[in-house]
Amino acid sequence: MKVKEIEVFKVVVPVDIEAVYSKEYLTGPYSAPEEKPPFYEIPKYIFKVYTSDGLVGFGESLRGISIESVREGVRGLKGVEIDDLNLNDLPINEDLYVGLEAAIFDIVGKQHGMPVYKLLGGAYRKSVYVNFWTHRRTPEDLAKRAIIAKNKGFDGMKIKCKLGDPMVERAKAVEEAVGPDFYLILDPNERFYNPAETIKLMRKLERFNILLLESPVPQWNLDWYALLRRKLDVPIAIHVSQTSPRAKGKYQVIEAIKKEAIDYLNISGGLVEFVKLAAIAEAAGIQVWHGSGVDLGILDASYVHAAAATPNCTLPSDIVGNFIREDDLIKEPLKFEGGRVKVPDKPGLGVELDEKALEKYTVQKITV
Amino acid sequence: MKVKEIEVFKVVVPVDIEAVYSKEYLTGPYSAPEEKPPFYEIPKYIFKVYTSDGLVGFGESLRGISIESVREGVRGLKGVEIDDLNLNDLPINEDLYVGLEAAIFDIVGKQHGMPVYKLLGGAYRKSVYVNFWTHRRTPEDLAKRAIIAKNKGFDGMKIKCKLGDPMVERAKAVEEAVGPDFYLILDPNERFYNPAETIKLMRKLERFNILLLESPVPQWNLDWYALLRRKLDVPIAIHVSQTSPRAKGKYQVIEAIKKEAIDYLNISGGLVEFVKLAAIAEAAGIQVWHGSGVDLGILDASYVHAAAATPNCTLPSDIVGNFIREDDLIKEPLKFEGGRVKVPDKPGLGVELDEKALEKYTVQKITV
Repeated sequence: MKVKEIEVFKVVVPVDIEAVYSKEYLTGPYSAPEEKPPFYEIPKYIFKVYTSDGLVGFGESLRGISIESVREGVRGLKGVEIDDLNLNDLPINEDLYVGLEAAIFDIVGKQHGMPVYKLLGGAYRKSVYVNFWTHRRTPEDLAKRAIIAKNKGFDGMKIKCKLGDPMVERAKAVEEAVGPDFYLILDPNERFYNPAETIKLMRKLERFNILLLESPVPQWNLDWYALLRRKLDVPIAIHVSQTSPRAKGKYQVIEAIKKEAIDYLNISGGLVEFVKLAAIAEAAGIQVWHGSGVDLGILDASYVHAAAATPNCTLPSDIVGNFIREDDLIKEPLKFEGGRVKVPDKPGLGVELDEKALEKYTVQKITV
Repeated sequence: MKVKEIEVFKVVVPVDIEAVYSKEYLTGPYSAPEEKPPFYEIPKYIFKVYTSDGLVGFGESLRGISIESVREGVRGLKGVEIDDLNLNDLPINEDLYVGLEAAIFDIVGKQHGMPVYKLLGGAYRKSVYVNFWTHRRTPEDLAKRAIIAKNKGFDGMKIKCKLGDPMVERAKAVEEAVGPDFYLILDPNERFYNPAETIKLMRKLERFNILLLESPVPQWNLDWYALLRRKLDVPIAIHVSQTSPRAKGKYQVIEAIKKEAIDYLNISGGLVEFVKLAAIAEAAGIQVWHGSGVDLGILDASYVHAAAATPNCTLPSDIVGNFIREDDLIKEPLKFEGGRVKVPDKPGLGVELDEKALEKYTVQKITV
């Protein structure tokens, strides 16, 4: 069974802007979209990989992949014999690996009647612990989001933040709105800038329910993380984004372990590399979660399979596209209940593309 | 498809004693079999796991497993639904994990028409680099073994040794017999006792072709390994024997990495754990090989699958049972050529039990 043809759909799926920022952060000195275009306007690519036996595998790229990289990645797969593939080492370039790996696992799973988690060995759980997510907000607006999260069954929320933000007021507003059992994960994306300021701030936040602090300072300096870990009681995590088995995220994990720099680890990336990096963390006694890039349904589903197949993926994963994007482009959305997402158990990824939605959000189509 | 019945064969397969020791080491002050019984008299267990669909999976235990542990391990599998199994976390007790994991992978591979290496993701090579093996010998006798090894196509040999052995004379005799391109792997099994004596000895051996030094001193002290690595130029390795995914070998790997204690790593154990531990080593830039316990054909075949599925398994693996044991208990022995062993590519483990040989070496049979 060979890969016969690959259809590529360049899509832009807007976010529900209310679900991302407070309107106060859209303009003015704290304006949130610091990049132009903001993340939600950056196109993604959806793939339909057709085989000579009539199977179709669905894939989805990360954000910000160039069209040249997409063409190259797709060319690598065109005509390959599925049974000859090493699923740990696919003939796909680094940029596009995550996107097309999902499609190949979808095909091989369908071929053998195995859900993707089985191709990774097997599932440790039938549902995966997840959090709610939001970007920077005013304290009172954040409290409103926390109420929405709690009503949806989540027991905590991950929030973006920045040095200078009203952090204590935010934490206080959330606690008042939903009580002290509701946790916050703080993710400044390195925008607490240095350990000294981070420590100063965290001392004020320690009395709140902060589940963990992710990527407070630049990640190139793991000594800073080791210092924070020695001084603070709030668990410290880094976020390793692995774009392919050839990427260098694994070296950062080893360095973080050597330096005793982290309590927890956020891993995003492909199926195989997620499982491998989590195994490294497991041997070092570190629990992990699955990160994301506010993705669509195909990638989110692949993350859920990888998280299910990973024994130490016990922290709340960022499977949040569903709550943020206008559409997930899959027919039946992932099922969230009680702060967990159900692991699809049909062969392959276990989700189907929604053709109508795909058409609606496609800005360009290529066939290779 | 359920596990219907498991036949257990307790076997003792003698070694070709000539292939193990010089006769001089069988008695007297340097007598080799330091344990009673010596390793080759310790029984192993062969398993035939029958499913309700008529498939049969073959397994083989490590040495020295108690009959109680065997019964418990086997009971854990009796009646389980194969499709419900997590291949990374089988319901088998620690002692018996390696033995029965092979049988389950054999079944699942046969069920899906996939060689075992495919169940691990896929193969990075069609044949696996291997060495020749012998226990302690007199220099002239070792030279004879080296000639046999070379004639069989091996480019090096792993030898057991002990502080006080005529090591320089051995290395010299081998070099004279087969030339300086033929490497030696020294494996004292911690019987160089301490770093000081190891360094004194290795200084005299440095001018010979020593590929690496495995487990010279007690492995509980990884600081000693770090010291040896700083002082010596011969690469230093530890041997991590992992009996199951619940065993603690992985922590030793992490500690060795943290302490910069090793150049290379010998891993023995089950399919899944071999691949996982090798992934940890890979992230730390460490090459590995597959160890063994001078096993029979079923386990040796499983090792070859695991080694094939591991990108950084590039050092010569110890797939040596074939050359040491009187029989391997499989119909068609593994194929060795040019210092490499061919990876079986039929579904499952790709080897068949030799019923006549099994009968010959069985000392007890149990059906569960």
